[in-house]
Amino acid sequence: MSSFTLTRTIARPYAETVDLIRSSLADQGFGVLTEIDFAATLKEKLGVDLAPEVILGACRPPLAYAAAQAEPSITAVLPCNVVVRWADHATTVVEVIDPAAMMALAQPDGGNAALDAVADEAGQRIAAVLDSLGTADPTGPWRPR
Amino acid sequence: MSSFTLTRTIARPYAETVDLIRSSLADQGFGVLTEIDFAATLKEKLGVDLAPEVILGACRPPLAYAAAQAEPSITAVLPCNVVVRWADHATTVVEVIDPAAMMALAQPDGGNAALDAVADEAGQRIAAVLDSLGTADPTGPWRPR
Repeated sequence: MSSFTLTRTIARPYAETVDLIRSSLADQGFGVLTEIDFAATLKEKLGVDLAPEVILGACRPPLAYAAAQAEPSITAVLPCNVVVRWADHATTVVEVIDPAAMMALAQPDGGNAALDAVADEAGQRIAAVLDSLGTADPTGPWRPR
Repeated sequence: MSSFTLTRTIARPYAETVDLIRSSLADQGFGVLTEIDFAATLKEKLGVDLAPEVILGACRPPLAYAAAQAEPSITAVLPCNVVVRWADHATTVVEVIDPAAMMALAQPDGGNAALDAVADEAGQRIAAVLDSLGTADPTGPWRPR
């Protein structure tokens, strides 16, 4: 957990969370353009054992287009990474790069209103995706029990 | 071109540059884990016409592993994006997210020596990749003529 990501701890198993976040991203108009099974990749390449973790590259085409029109270099930080990481058999961490942090990186002195508008919309849609997952609060009505 | 990316303008056609950069990345131990044909994606989804542009997601497994061990959240900024963008029939722009900027985003207050070491090595290897491409200086010995 860190300030450059939006993070939620979810009281659902890993595989269920991956399925749910795909569906939530689609509901918000994000396609998943890339997918890296981080644990499997490092197991294959280095022989190390990590907890299951996938990096989904999410993209909402109208936002990507608006951002690239405003600042061509922005493609270097696309797509928007959505990381799903196993925590324990019943708990999963979802961590998304904060669109505001991405845009701040791209325009350290600010002043690009079009990029700010993209970051605002992306941030709202990512927040909706995260809200759809519930949280790890065991008293919440969303708990899959 | 911007401060969060390392950018080169190359006096080679687009397709040749894409091939060359794949080979140069491999020489530096980077696998290409993801690939987004940005122009084709936006053409398909939005019907807009953009110049050819591809986003290659490069990863050197030992560096990714070291970074994730130092800071699990770092996976939200992986892989390292290498953007290749058509400029004109004989000129191509290559733009890579600056590993130092990625790590600065991940640790705004600094202080993680392991992440800094990863950023240093990644930056040196990316610089070697870019150097292998030559530049757009028409007097350079590398010019493919």
